[in-house]
Amino acid sequence: MKIDFTYYNPTKIHFGKTALEHLSPELANYGETVLLVYGKGSIKKNGLYERIIKILNESGKKVVELAGIKSNPTYEQMLEGARLVRENSVDLILAVGGGSVIDCAKGISVSAYCKGDPWERYWINFEEVDNKIVPVGAVLTMAGTGSEMNGGSVITNEEKKLKNGRVYPANVYPKFSILNPEYTYTVPKYQMSSGIFDTMSHLMEQYFSGDDDNTTDYLIEGVLRSLIHSACIALENPEDYEARSNIMWCAAIGLNTITGLSKEQDWEVHMIEHQVGAYTDCAHGAGLAAISVPYYKYICGCGTNKFVRFAKNVWNIPVDSMTKEEAAAAGIEKLHQFIVKLGLPTSIRELGATEDMLPLIANSTIQGGGYKQMTSEDILKVLKASY
Amino acid sequence: MKIDFTYYNPTKIHFGKTALEHLSPELANYGETVLLVYGKGSIKKNGLYERIIKILNESGKKVVELAGIKSNPTYEQMLEGARLVRENSVDLILAVGGGSVIDCAKGISVSAYCKGDPWERYWINFEEVDNKIVPVGAVLTMAGTGSEMNGGSVITNEEKKLKNGRVYPANVYPKFSILNPEYTYTVPKYQMSSGIFDTMSHLMEQYFSGDDDNTTDYLIEGVLRSLIHSACIALENPEDYEARSNIMWCAAIGLNTITGLSKEQDWEVHMIEHQVGAYTDCAHGAGLAAISVPYYKYICGCGTNKFVRFAKNVWNIPVDSMTKEEAAAAGIEKLHQFIVKLGLPTSIRELGATEDMLPLIANSTIQGGGYKQMTSEDILKVLKASY
Repeated sequence: MKIDFTYYNPTKIHFGKTALEHLSPELANYGETVLLVYGKGSIKKNGLYERIIKILNESGKKVVELAGIKSNPTYEQMLEGARLVRENSVDLILAVGGGSVIDCAKGISVSAYCKGDPWERYWINFEEVDNKIVPVGAVLTMAGTGSEMNGGSVITNEEKKLKNGRVYPANVYPKFSILNPEYTYTVPKYQMSSGIFDTMSHLMEQYFSGDDDNTTDYLIEGVLRSLIHSACIALENPEDYEARSNIMWCAAIGLNTITGLSKEQDWEVHMIEHQVGAYTDCAHGAGLAAISVPYYKYICGCGTNKFVRFAKNVWNIPVDSMTKEEAAAAGIEKLHQFIVKLGLPTSIRELGATEDMLPLIANSTIQGGGYKQMTSEDILKVLKASY
Repeated sequence: MKIDFTYYNPTKIHFGKTALEHLSPELANYGETVLLVYGKGSIKKNGLYERIIKILNESGKKVVELAGIKSNPTYEQMLEGARLVRENSVDLILAVGGGSVIDCAKGISVSAYCKGDPWERYWINFEEVDNKIVPVGAVLTMAGTGSEMNGGSVITNEEKKLKNGRVYPANVYPKFSILNPEYTYTVPKYQMSSGIFDTMSHLMEQYFSGDDDNTTDYLIEGVLRSLIHSACIALENPEDYEARSNIMWCAAIGLNTITGLSKEQDWEVHMIEHQVGAYTDCAHGAGLAAISVPYYKYICGCGTNKFVRFAKNVWNIPVDSMTKEEAAAAGIEKLHQFIVKLGLPTSIRELGATEDMLPLIANSTIQGGGYKQMTSEDILKVLKASY
């Protein structure tokens, strides 16, 4: 743990089949008006909406609704939510859905009482939030983003054609999140796989950096092993409670900052995917899957020892009988096979990318990286290898 | 994650060489009177006392002191602290030391304004704390107990010859803890080893339970691997910063509840050690070391699969060529060798236990367990094997 850090995560997690029983006591901590934020109605189909409305009514809450949050939540929807908060003096924003809905709720939370233009101030200039923050609570219905236990909020400004992410400090984290793995049973298999790979990517982006020997690296290996193991079970039987619950918890701790402590971190796969997404509107996890193997092949010579460790500790490959390069390659090959098993794409062509897009994507991607500082030429090579 | 849980850990951790720089901003969150609680003066020898007093003075604080906290903090000292809090209207209790000092600070925190007898109400009857809780902050100087990031408070009532532990809810956790691994350099090697084994024991007590396949088990394996790896480095070079920092962080997360989520847990080694300690006054980690191998040998037939997994995933033993029983035994043998390497005792005789004590210890130990529900006869057999 060579790099100094502050760790502070005050989100209260209620996990399991009985988790929703905690909603009523949690609601008692807030005033009477609740803004209920949700997506395109899957919670109406599976009965969750009805159950939550019942609890809100029994708790004597006045409910305002913001429905139809898109999978890439828009700035426009966020502003609509902010208006509802102000007009109704909302005391709690309750997000029911996946990461998009929770991201949107956090955006509403910081924007409702913002002095000035929230987009400019908070998503472009990354200013400190100096206004009242409206508390957020969450009921999670899809595992992957980790938004239920962190300060991340990715919002798409359609007018400006920008999808910007921001990690807010702990006072913006959900105050409580209710995680019942059974709520994820109705997520289609492709979305489940996409969420699993999103979590996997978060863990790898944090893992592949630094030469140091860090407790965090061991933690990440543990979470990756559990995630891979449970993913294989869930692919066979999506209603295996143990597997879905492990996947849900891996997603939460995979981006609640504990798996990134004292790490330099990489995040270039996410940067590239952002722009692939901007050009193809692909599912986030699917985009990450298509880019990851070419990316890690491209950079693995700059951090060979860590890739050998990945092969050995995550994939149980007997590396002692191999050269370092063979071992590193064997680990990445296992990653490739896992993506195939998940049913996710291994090329961005499958996601709708065309050859003429590649230079445009390369040039618009934020340049960063872990073991290797990426240039737009490097990114273009990765994109060609992903095509 | 079959067992439902609530996870909530609001302690803010400042970690690293610059961690003490956060003390002044933290102090600004509290009123002017600080009760400084510390041990027998090692912080005066290494200069930490002086640095903290300087920061307190510069922050305009009025400082009240409670010095000389014993390694088994007494109820008497705790009551003295509670009196100081009341008489001086203390706004923050700042614990500077190891787990004993922090445990004592938490005890003072809940007792100062207790209506009635704190010992009876909180340590015997485990009543909910219904009075004002005085906030606690910590500067940690020894790694092992995990008290810096949880609600545990073990207090010895000398008059009643009872050493009782209690885990308080999150509002009693330290509000902030400052963890600079360099502060642990001056801890004598035997104490360092004792702390390492205390952490190791916390992890094993949580690990050895349940047949289920749980993300928490993978997390524990990761922390154990890191702890063992760094312990071996620190034994050679106690001032290896990376190793000491990993050990410090393993201790914190090893008992901050995240490594116990959804687990039934065991804790019988701790129960036995408590009574061995009551009869011999041995160091806690040393007592745990002497009992662990005989205990795990005794129960491993009731949870063989988990012990095989322990051998494979924690100790890298090639278990595929062995019977389950051989593999389980090989893992426990590795644990034994590690205890020897740490320089810790492998028999309670070395700690001052005598043969006539054994039935007395066995009969006074709280009966529990993980894979096996222990009776006093079982405990006596373990004690004889530990002798």
